[in-house]
This record gives sequence, C-alpha cells and structure tokens, in this order.
Amino acid sequence: MKRAVVLLSGGLDSATTLAIARRDGFEPFALSFAYGQRHNLELEAAKRVAAALNAHEHRIATIDLRVFGGSALTDEIAVPKNRDAKSADEIPITYVPARNTIFLSYALAWCEVLGAADIFIGANAIDYSGYPDCRPEFIAAFERLASVATKAGVEGTRFHIHAPLISMSKADIIRKGMELGVDFSQTHSCYDPASDGLACGQCDSCRLRLEGFRAVGLVDPIPYAAR
Amino acid sequence: MKRAVVLLSGGLDSATTLAIARRDGFEPFALSFAYGQRHNLELEAAKRVAAALNAHEHRIATIDLRVFGGSALTDEIAVPKNRDAKSADEIPITYVPARNTIFLSYALAWCEVLGAADIFIGANAIDYSGYPDCRPEFIAAFERLASVATKAGVEGTRFHIHAPLISMSKADIIRKGMELGVDFSQTHSCYDPASDGLACGQCDSCRLRLEGFRAVGLVDPIPYAAR
Repeated sequence: MKRAVVLLSGGLDSATTLAIARRDGFEPFALSFAYGQRHNLELEAAKRVAAALNAHEHRIATIDLRVFGGSALTDEIAVPKNRDAKSADEIPITYVPARNTIFLSYALAWCEVLGAADIFIGANAIDYSGYPDCRPEFIAAFERLASVATKAGVEGTRFHIHAPLISMSKADIIRKGMELGVDFSQTHSCYDPASDGLACGQCDSCRLRLEGFRAVGLVDPIPYAAR
Repeated sequence: MKRAVVLLSGGLDSATTLAIARRDGFEPFALSFAYGQRHNLELEAAKRVAAALNAHEHRIATIDLRVFGGSALTDEIAVPKNRDAKSADEIPITYVPARNTIFLSYALAWCEVLGAADIFIGANAIDYSGYPDCRPEFIAAFERLASVATKAGVEGTRFHIHAPLISMSKADIIRKGMELGVDFSQTHSCYDPASDGLACGQCDSCRLRLEGFRAVGLVDPIPYAAR
C-alpha cells in the first residue's frame, strides 16, 4: 500500500478527504496542527476522525502561528457572524496568513521521512470562505515546489498534492462522505464555539456546513447553539 | 523604507544576508526559529546579530520539527565529522526535511501581516552541504508559490525571494560581510558544538567556514575545539 500524508483538521471536509485517500488505496498518515487556534475542539474531533477512519498513524505538530498575529482564528479579533459567506471576492479576517502553505510544508517534511510522495488536503474552491490558499493554482504551485524542495524530489520522486474536494459543492462533499462511511457527528467545523463546545451556527464555517446539509435534505447531526 | 523579512539563523551566511538587506535599503524584520535544533546556541547568536545589524524587529517562532524526525540536526543521530563537504552529489544526514520550505512559509506569513513583499534568505548553492532547498530552482519555485498562496498576492503583490548569496563562494560571502561591517565573532555556524559552546571544527558547517576564512587569508575570529 502506498503511504500518503492527509491533512486532518477534524472538520467535515478533511474527514471526507481522509475517507477518499483510503478509498483510493492509500495508507493514510493523518497530520493535524496545534497552532494556537481559538477553536481547539477541532483537535479532539481530529483524533476521533483519525481513529474512526483507520488512519495508520495520527500526529499533531505544535506550531506557533500566533507569533505574527493577523487573523481572527488565532488572535483576539472577533469572528464575523452571519456574513455573506459566498461573497468570495473579499478575503475575510478568519484567513490565517499562509496557513495552508505552512501546513503543506509540514506534510512534505513528513512525506520525506515516510518515503511518501502523496499528500491529501481538503481544500475547496467552491463553497469556501474566499481563502487564496484553497484555489487550484495554489495546489498546482505547491506541487511544483515539492519536487524541487526535497531530497526525494532531487532523487526523482514526483510529489502529488491531491485536493479531491477542490471543485465540489459542500452538498456534494457531504454526499461523498456519507457514501464512504464518514460519521459527520464526530466532526467539528465551527470557528467560534461556545464555552460548552457547541457550534455557533453563525460563522462562515457553520453557515456553509448547515447550507450543505440543507441542500442534501438532511439534518446536520452535530448540536448547535443556534441554527 | 520598504520592509523585508530576513531569515536569520545566527550563522555567517544569514548575518551577511541581513547586512545586504540593509544595504539595499530595506527595513529588516529578522526571523529565527526554535525548532528543536541540537545547536540552540545559534539562537543566541541570532539575537546578537539582529541587534548589532539594527534589525527593526527580531522574532523567534517556536516550531516543532522533531515531530517527524529524520535529521542529525534534530534527532539523536550523530553529526558526521570530517566528511568531504564538497561532495555535493550526496545529501547528508544533517539535511532537515523541507526545512527551508517551512522557514519560507513562516516568512511569507509574517510578510502578509507586515504588508511586506520581500524575503531574504542566505541560501547558497556553491560552498554548501548539498541541500536541495538551497538551489536556485527551489527559490524560484517558492517565489511563484508566494504570489498565488496569499491574500496580498491575489490583490496584486508580487513577492520577491532574495537569495543574494546563492552563487557566491564562502570566501566571497566573508569578503562581502566584512565590507558591510558584519562582526563574524558574533556568529555561530557549528552543527555540533561542545557542551561549553565551542565550535567543533569538524562538521560540514565548520569545515566550509574555516576553508572560507583560509581562502580570504584571515583567521576566523570565533574559538574552536579543534581546527
């Protein structure tokens, strides 16, 4: 079985991505980050999802993204509520500078140690929050970088960054996840959960998720403070 | 003055790079990493160099590169001594997987927060240890990535990764640093210093440095356990 590193946030998208990596015959090595996010509950969700979907291994890298500030997800900046999440022209304050670049760099490091050439990321350019590092051109640029950046690349390995959700709607992602046996009750997507862990139902991430379940004609199995 | 993020390890190359950024009219924001390196003395050297060369600010990001292992610089693997450091065909065990990719990703994140579009890195492809992420094609690939990876890039910023040492010999770097007032007695290059902090004189990094000073006809001002 070919090994692959799978970025796993604990949300709906990355859980589905992990299931797709399994379906495609890869042995998944799941990678999460403790990066000073306000919503640390997602790491607990990542652990549940990694176990449920039989990740071969799950590592959590502790990295400091607060050192520079500049995002509502890591700083004392309010997470916007009930924003029109589809106005993708505007990049919201929940954008964490260069986050996916940093995450993929770590995935690349682990690939080298594992002798793997495949990375899976749940980036999505359709029902997303307008983040630049979720676009196909970003994925393609990182793929080109990986092969010149590494010892394995110099020795002939061609890295492949799989972003299987990139052109899917949130509804399609939910359908695909269910087809592959993902238990969405184990996932966590909210940017700004209440102190009791309940999803807020009003941040971009909750709204996109709720709209996705509505479009599929299902009720999201996780509890919300408001929906 | 235009702002630039300068990667600063505390070694001879990055100190010279910081001096070049200053000479070129940039306001330097120096960035170092506590990444679990065995030779933590380099962070003390980085602080001295940042202060001596008037970095506008100096931040140290704590990141975990030990989480994957795979390098003599972060693991309990012996650092090779008296190796033929110029046999650049072979990539040595001191290579840290994807290290410069990770470092540049962090520099890019700080750029976005600072509104900067310039990054300086002391990568060198001549008198170097054979690391893939010190080559011009790596620098060019990261530059292309930066502009598609970021909010600033989407909004039209063109990032520039400056690697002013990339084609210089170690002797040329030393000459350039002295011309720009770098005090090399404040720098630290050894991969495997003794417990009292003395440079070993036998690892790749020490040997390249000592050869460079010899080629210039000078004595390296730092003390060595053996040379």
